[in-house]
Amino acid sequence: MKKVERALISVFDKKGIVEFAKILTDEFKVEILSTGGTSKLLKSNNINVVNIAEYTQSPEIFDGRVKTLHPRIEGGILLRRNNTQDLQEAQKYDIQPIDMVVCNLYNFKDKIIEPKISLQEALEMIDIGGPTMIRAAAKNFHDVVVVSNPDHYPKLIKEMRENGGISSQTRAILAQEVFFKMAEYNAIIANFLQSFHNPKVTFGSKMIKVYEKVQDCRYGENWDQSAAYYKDLSMDEGLHTIKKVSGKEISFNNYLDIDSCMQILLDLDNSYYTTAILKHTSPNGVAIDKNDQLKSVKMAFKTDPMSAFGGIWGLNKPVSKKIADFIVNKEKIFIEVLMAPSFDPEALNILKQKETMILLEFGDFLSRRNKFYNNPELRSVLGGILAQEYDTKPVIKNWRVVSNRNVDETEKEALIFAYIVSKWAKSNSACFVQTYEDGVYTIGIGAGQQSRVHVVKLAVQKAIEFGHKKELQDSLMGTDSFFPFPDGLEVAVEAGAKAIINPGGSIRDELVIKKANELNCALVFCDKRVFRH
Amino acid sequence: MKKVERALISVFDKKGIVEFAKILTDEFKVEILSTGGTSKLLKSNNINVVNIAEYTQSPEIFDGRVKTLHPRIEGGILLRRNNTQDLQEAQKYDIQPIDMVVCNLYNFKDKIIEPKISLQEALEMIDIGGPTMIRAAAKNFHDVVVVSNPDHYPKLIKEMRENGGISSQTRAILAQEVFFKMAEYNAIIANFLQSFHNPKVTFGSKMIKVYEKVQDCRYGENWDQSAAYYKDLSMDEGLHTIKKVSGKEISFNNYLDIDSCMQILLDLDNSYYTTAILKHTSPNGVAIDKNDQLKSVKMAFKTDPMSAFGGIWGLNKPVSKKIADFIVNKEKIFIEVLMAPSFDPEALNILKQKETMILLEFGDFLSRRNKFYNNPELRSVLGGILAQEYDTKPVIKNWRVVSNRNVDETEKEALIFAYIVSKWAKSNSACFVQTYEDGVYTIGIGAGQQSRVHVVKLAVQKAIEFGHKKELQDSLMGTDSFFPFPDGLEVAVEAGAKAIINPGGSIRDELVIKKANELNCALVFCDKRVFRH
Repeated sequence: MKKVERALISVFDKKGIVEFAKILTDEFKVEILSTGGTSKLLKSNNINVVNIAEYTQSPEIFDGRVKTLHPRIEGGILLRRNNTQDLQEAQKYDIQPIDMVVCNLYNFKDKIIEPKISLQEALEMIDIGGPTMIRAAAKNFHDVVVVSNPDHYPKLIKEMRENGGISSQTRAILAQEVFFKMAEYNAIIANFLQSFHNPKVTFGSKMIKVYEKVQDCRYGENWDQSAAYYKDLSMDEGLHTIKKVSGKEISFNNYLDIDSCMQILLDLDNSYYTTAILKHTSPNGVAIDKNDQLKSVKMAFKTDPMSAFGGIWGLNKPVSKKIADFIVNKEKIFIEVLMAPSFDPEALNILKQKETMILLEFGDFLSRRNKFYNNPELRSVLGGILAQEYDTKPVIKNWRVVSNRNVDETEKEALIFAYIVSKWAKSNSACFVQTYEDGVYTIGIGAGQQSRVHVVKLAVQKAIEFGHKKELQDSLMGTDSFFPFPDGLEVAVEAGAKAIINPGGSIRDELVIKKANELNCALVFCDKRVFRH
Repeated sequence: MKKVERALISVFDKKGIVEFAKILTDEFKVEILSTGGTSKLLKSNNINVVNIAEYTQSPEIFDGRVKTLHPRIEGGILLRRNNTQDLQEAQKYDIQPIDMVVCNLYNFKDKIIEPKISLQEALEMIDIGGPTMIRAAAKNFHDVVVVSNPDHYPKLIKEMRENGGISSQTRAILAQEVFFKMAEYNAIIANFLQSFHNPKVTFGSKMIKVYEKVQDCRYGENWDQSAAYYKDLSMDEGLHTIKKVSGKEISFNNYLDIDSCMQILLDLDNSYYTTAILKHTSPNGVAIDKNDQLKSVKMAFKTDPMSAFGGIWGLNKPVSKKIADFIVNKEKIFIEVLMAPSFDPEALNILKQKETMILLEFGDFLSRRNKFYNNPELRSVLGGILAQEYDTKPVIKNWRVVSNRNVDETEKEALIFAYIVSKWAKSNSACFVQTYEDGVYTIGIGAGQQSRVHVVKLAVQKAIEFGHKKELQDSLMGTDSFFPFPDGLEVAVEAGAKAIINPGGSIRDELVIKKANELNCALVFCDKRVFRH
């Protein structure tokens, strides 16, 4: 148990500091050393404070750039209380032990996101004395209590009241926190300087990422892998802002699917009514209706009712009682995760009957698309990581109808829809869609194939198997990369496709166009590939 | 251009420091301040040095815990040379400017991986004075040159000789390096303390990752995404140790496939001869031969010759002239990446004719399996990251033959092989294999499907399409999770499977077992799922 007799207090965030200091002095007779603004604040609250400059007999200089960087301060912190030689030296040079360091830093992160900050202003914000004190205190946590976060004051007071001091375990945790904070603090500065000096470089020579755990997962992709979900501390927005309303714990694989599902919804026009159903990170049914959310649910479900069971369902508009009824009472569909901006109370009553079903409310998530893509997308490879910009550019780079047959506006919209769904199905992918009076929906989605022709065949087969043979007639198809040979296109047209979109770019594009013309199929090249693995 | 008149030198890594200091003093008349070991070394090399303790008139105390933490030092570094008030204060308190700080730190990382290090020893290694000086110098880089890495000495000397001082650009880069170093240094300490205090916790409350760029990729998964490959600085081993022998630049998508391919090879018995062919991160042909690498190449190629074109090929034994001949001259296969421990010179001559083909030599990579899996596998989701232990446990947790029909040793080996291939094919996956005299090979692989029965159908179709209908008779199949219904098993047996492996665990396991018995199929449950998304 560490008894505190002398504390140094120097804080940027002054929250709770007056109360804390008052209790330290009044109740525990702690001597308080302080500097600048903190000192003034405490004194004006009638707290007895010794100014550092008096204490060290060394003035605060250079606008406060140097104030605590003094042997009487750092020595008082670093002194090993169980080391005879240290104690003798301390006595000889009149260094008094400092038992507690209460210090938090300028919020560099908030400062540098100000749009017009100059380099000089940013540099001025870099704290040198503070980090030195808290790192020294953390290193010497066997003898020193380091408090780098105002949130800790109440529990420290509680501990002191109960035990007369601060336990070794608490001191260790506080010390650990300091090194994480310092890593993060320096990383923010380093990343800032890197991008300040190389504003055009997306990927600098170093990359430092700091994460905070949101949730331990019961297991990872498989039952014998431990796993966790962390938020990126450089991002305010993300999946962690989505609210769970009901249901069992969100699993690792759920998170993968939730992520894909949200990104599909972010990619589609939010003024319509959309439903996206996924499993194993690929969509197996997506529909857009111009007027009615229930209709879009029905159309998306219809694509592949088998895979929709146990799937992840995302709706871009609130869930009504009718929708809940359709799912729970009419079709009796087992859904793993159901996500929407909100749930009507009556809908919630019905859905909550299914106790394990995970209901997620994502509020205005879809209106904040630009917030989610500031950081690169990362993926481990052995010993390292692949980083890339998220694929956020419009899926149509150029709209080039390369066939003799053209498409009308409805067909164009349907093709773009097919292409977006194909983007989110694992590569290689292909997606057949059909229009109806008020919307468009998928009728066959193929994913994860190693050749173009096979994935088209697969999409056709699935469409037929789930009763969409008729809808294949005059259907529209998108596929995520070019046709290396005309065979994939042939399969699609034979199945009934009247229009196809892909990026183009094969050395055999001419052959593919020729085949499209022979078969009277509209063919659009959009110059943007949409692989996703 | 910053002229250097006074430098502070205090280094743990003494490499090159004597030569550097000699040039500073002899050629540029720099006054050198130094401490402890560095000071001794320089003096013994007849370099004129002022000891810090003399300079500050403050003793080095607590075994060197406090030596440079003094206003005359930190003030000398932090002094703003263009600020009148700073200059007046500096004069008043006799603070001389320090224009260069040469300082590197204890290698905490190497120290803490020593198996028996005590907490106290580790804490003693945490440097306080060094980080303070270099951070102060980096903050004030407009006026100070900070050198935290011995590798920079020659180019700094060169710059001083050419221009009489150090340019602003160089000073900025050096400063940036300091903050990256400090982020990493503090992260290592934080991670060490976290795992020291919670040795059983795989995923602590914070996670900090530091990466160094190995390569900019021309683009990411698609042409309009910028991308890069970074190594994890906490790992010595990884894909970055693989040597490119020939061919075009390795792309982002290549890295994804190379990673999967190496992991398949790491999972299979390295005493045999193995070939694995992949595309879009899923295998499309894998074979093991007990005696002959060429044979394994032929058998793996045979599975799906169409997808093998443009694929990533990995061999676990050296590439001979015969193999090169088979690929380049006999079958004329276009291969994107060919990886092996090494290439015979004659093989290389043949393969290099294909100028774009990427040839990678991975040496004894496969003997170092345990080196690659120390860190979690990471994957971005919006605003955060999913972290999990790599799936490295044996794919067979329990070998439970649950059917009446049993399997012999050859069949058992073949089933395990099928299951490993299924592990690496994207979920849901299914893999049919057949044995031959000296080995086992894939005849149909299905990947990336949203339902179990569809992926089995897909694997069967592909086997038939590529001419393996006969080999389906008495084939063996692995699939990466349980059958939710007996239908998937029925499809497999109808196609010819005599034995099937999967983890089991469905609520309808009994129905599946009953069906297996009805159809006289051997069924093994191994209690370990092998999803991979």
